[in-house]
Amino acid sequence: MVLGGLGFIGSNLTLRLVTSGAQVSVLDCELADSGANTHNLDPVIEEVRIVDADIRDHQGLMPYLSQTDIVFCLAGHASHVVSMAEPCLDLDINCRAHLAILETCRQHNPQAVLVHAGTRQVYGTPTRLPVDETHPLAPTDILGIHNLATDQYFTLYARTYGMRCVSLRLTNTYGPRQQLRGTTQGVIGVFLRQAMDGETVSIFGDGEQVRDFSFVDDVVDALIRAAVTPDLAQCVYNIGSSEVHSLLGFVKALRKFCEFDHSIVPFPPEYRAIAIGDYYADYGIFAAETGWAPKTSLGDGLAKTVTYFRDKLDIYR
Amino acid sequence: MVLGGLGFIGSNLTLRLVTSGAQVSVLDCELADSGANTHNLDPVIEEVRIVDADIRDHQGLMPYLSQTDIVFCLAGHASHVVSMAEPCLDLDINCRAHLAILETCRQHNPQAVLVHAGTRQVYGTPTRLPVDETHPLAPTDILGIHNLATDQYFTLYARTYGMRCVSLRLTNTYGPRQQLRGTTQGVIGVFLRQAMDGETVSIFGDGEQVRDFSFVDDVVDALIRAAVTPDLAQCVYNIGSSEVHSLLGFVKALRKFCEFDHSIVPFPPEYRAIAIGDYYADYGIFAAETGWAPKTSLGDGLAKTVTYFRDKLDIYR
Repeated sequence: MVLGGLGFIGSNLTLRLVTSGAQVSVLDCELADSGANTHNLDPVIEEVRIVDADIRDHQGLMPYLSQTDIVFCLAGHASHVVSMAEPCLDLDINCRAHLAILETCRQHNPQAVLVHAGTRQVYGTPTRLPVDETHPLAPTDILGIHNLATDQYFTLYARTYGMRCVSLRLTNTYGPRQQLRGTTQGVIGVFLRQAMDGETVSIFGDGEQVRDFSFVDDVVDALIRAAVTPDLAQCVYNIGSSEVHSLLGFVKALRKFCEFDHSIVPFPPEYRAIAIGDYYADYGIFAAETGWAPKTSLGDGLAKTVTYFRDKLDIYR
Repeated sequence: MVLGGLGFIGSNLTLRLVTSGAQVSVLDCELADSGANTHNLDPVIEEVRIVDADIRDHQGLMPYLSQTDIVFCLAGHASHVVSMAEPCLDLDINCRAHLAILETCRQHNPQAVLVHAGTRQVYGTPTRLPVDETHPLAPTDILGIHNLATDQYFTLYARTYGMRCVSLRLTNTYGPRQQLRGTTQGVIGVFLRQAMDGETVSIFGDGEQVRDFSFVDDVVDALIRAAVTPDLAQCVYNIGSSEVHSLLGFVKALRKFCEFDHSIVPFPPEYRAIAIGDYYADYGIFAAETGWAPKTSLGDGLAKTVTYFRDKLDIYR
């Protein structure tokens, strides 16, 4: 079962699982402002069961959760700015719903494997690079606080009840099927849409902030390995990339595929307050335990992304 | 305003504030299983306004919060075991309600000072002693996870919005007006009741686990200093004691005042899962910034405690 399976990472995961022969249910309520897009699953729409349910509806989820071998938790809000504007809403979705899912599985399906897509935002502003899992936890936004709580729920339920719960702390992920609409769901989608529409791409700050941009296929591979690798030593792992680029470098790499200008603009106040500077992860422990490695270069990933969106821009814009 | 002002620490704080000439409102909904006891405020009952409201009632709190200079947040669940049994309830009380209080103050009373009574449980099992504020954050129960989120809300609202928010991470607190009823609200209340009733005091584990037992007057002093000291450098501070005793040592110290036997019994499973071994805090930063120091020895504190309860056992038992 893929919670949030109509979204960006959830749909890519669903496609891979169906192709591998898995029986997949997708649960998604197509929340406004989320990355849900029914077209994301067009290629496998006959092969998956799609359930229209909200992860906040504890009772409604029960029958599905109690019959599932693996639950991928990819539903939720991913907007830093929205989390600050509506913190209690973010709590209900990114925290309370996940706690209720764990409780339901503990009571009705304790053998289930649960994999959570977490975020680097739990670390806040890095005090050292690369960031490994022992880095201090000092989130600078509501989203990070709630994702940290959920990581800790996963750890607690694994340690206390012997359940198989894993959370992967993802960094900036990009690729086919990501949301291009709006301005609150992450900088990459905004860059991609502006670039493909030939608009001026606006970079906040000085563009020198570095990131380990992850291509979605590599992230999907990590999520599946987290689910199927037995006897993982930890409950929480970093995921990252073998390449580190500045935001400006990312935008310049996009130039190979689209024609556009860019400009450097000061941080708007609501973004400055939660900006974390440079970030890239040490994902060595997960790689050593599962054999996972990020395989897609930024150039290859952007080529696949732009090719995918080229004739589907109207669906995503 | 003291949220949870009918409870153990809240009522002691309220008494001190009234004695100091402050105009105090107490907000408490006397939640079942909480430490609320109307008799706790008997000495000042004519001098405080008592509001029967639940901190989860966001709208109901608004008129009170918007007119207060200082908000002491001492309402909440303090039971590790209950937090594990009813995690979503714990979330609503210890986490969501506090987030809503911060949001209300941000929108309607951003000049208010907010002081939160947090807990050492955010650190989990100590990896080094004494535990300072840079110690890894790895809570071993739901209560710890939610208190950590609330500490981080306080930090976030201070950093992002310039509000004056402080959270003190308390350790095992004892003293007059603490809850003696039930078995889920902390080991000290159970010990005290058993000892004063002449029953056998049961110590889980081997009794060698050490703690920095804090006398409530010292904790009240810390809360007030947190509220009135200008320009605190941090948002989160440890509070502790100058003395460290084992649980067995605590029980033996009680012998000076009451006649009883004790026995060492194995941990019940629901306690073993969340036991953290030894703990004592480094409270040096708070002491240096505010001039605070714990002043009450265990012997003096127990003398005051037993004297207080001696002729009021029926009210508290």
